[in-house]
Amino acid sequence: MECKCCDRKTIRNEEEKKKLNSRINRIIGQLEGIKRMVDDDRYCADILIQLSAVDKAIKSLASIILDNHMHSCLIEHIEKGDYSIIDEISNLIRRFQ
Amino acid sequence: MECKCCDRKTIRNEEEKKKLNSRINRIIGQLEGIKRMVDDDRYCADILIQLSAVDKAIKSLASIILDNHMHSCLIEHIEKGDYSIIDEISNLIRRFQ
Amino acid sequence: MECKCCDRKTIRNEEEKKKLNSRINRIIGQLEGIKRMVDDDRYCADILIQLSAVDKAIKSLASIILDNHMHSCLIEHIEKGDYSIIDEISNLIRRFQ
Amino acid sequence: MECKCCDRKTIRNEEEKKKLNSRINRIIGQLEGIKRMVDDDRYCADILIQLSAVDKAIKSLASIILDNHMHSCLIEHIEKGDYSIIDEISNLIRRFQ
Repeated sequence: MECKCCDRKTIRNEEEKKKLNSRINRIIGQLEGIKRMVDDDRYCADILIQLSAVDKAIKSLASIILDNHMHSCLIEHIEKGDYSIIDEISNLIRRFQ
Repeated sequence: MECKCCDRKTIRNEEEKKKLNSRINRIIGQLEGIKRMVDDDRYCADILIQLSAVDKAIKSLASIILDNHMHSCLIEHIEKGDYSIIDEISNLIRRFQ
Repeated sequence: MECKCCDRKTIRNEEEKKKLNSRINRIIGQLEGIKRMVDDDRYCADILIQLSAVDKAIKSLASIILDNHMHSCLIEHIEKGDYSIIDEISNLIRRFQ
Repeated sequence: MECKCCDRKTIRNEEEKKKLNSRINRIIGQLEGIKRMVDDDRYCADILIQLSAVDKAIKSLASIILDNHMHSCLIEHIEKGDYSIIDEISNLIRRFQ
């Protein structure tokens, strides 16, 4: 089996890259919208509602990347008998709690 | 007293706008960096660590805006005897919990 | 006006105390249930689902107390011209983000 | 290999049970303390600080259980070629985000 997750690399195909980057572009678009709201003296509460949507989008992106990580790197490592990846994942999860 | 928070508007001076927008620009910069990491097949865990930094930066920006909101709009409304803003703020806080 | 929030005291009536404590009792009951699940060798994922319910109940209790706090102490302090309570509240909110 | 995680059971030894339950007992103790604070008319902000400590203790307990889960059930299932447990874990993580 070809290694997709070695030497701190994760090989992604073009479709995966496109999907992730279009999600990130959408979040950047939301943030550009918030900059315009600031410039237009929009009401704080309305800005905070938009910002909470960005927060959810970031968490959802993190979920997708973690999910990909577990479906590829985690399985690969465990099947090779390398369980150290589990502590690495535990630490990542804690960062988003 | 001139009303800074009326009709769902929040009047900000140039300095406040500059501060908020430079924070948002920095977050956009972090996200552009994450796009490059995806393209360069960087390891999932490293991308997730960067994404957790974005998550913290978003929460910190939200804190600053909420703080400004309480120091301006909240005080103005309470001093006018309009307490409905408190429920609005409670709802905002819940969105970020 | 009688001061309900002075000297780091918050005077609560019997009904408020009963409401808050019955919510806390319910959370304690959920945790007792989780102890039984541990003893009965129940599946980790089922225990984690129960624990996420406790997490939501804690956040919801915090929202109620913060809401009461803003509807009583915050209004009292602002009407006396003491705005320092706003930074105190900002710090509390950050603890639950 | 004896199966420790089958039929939605997780077999725990006495030491693990004791550790988890003493953590839960400590959280219950914190909540009993908060009930006394409510009865004693303690200041809302002080109660909220205690409640944020409970929130952290709950998240830390969840981390430990999830960690155990990955070090036992996850490894067992992946080594049997059953990858469905990964989506189950993804869903659990999302509950605590």
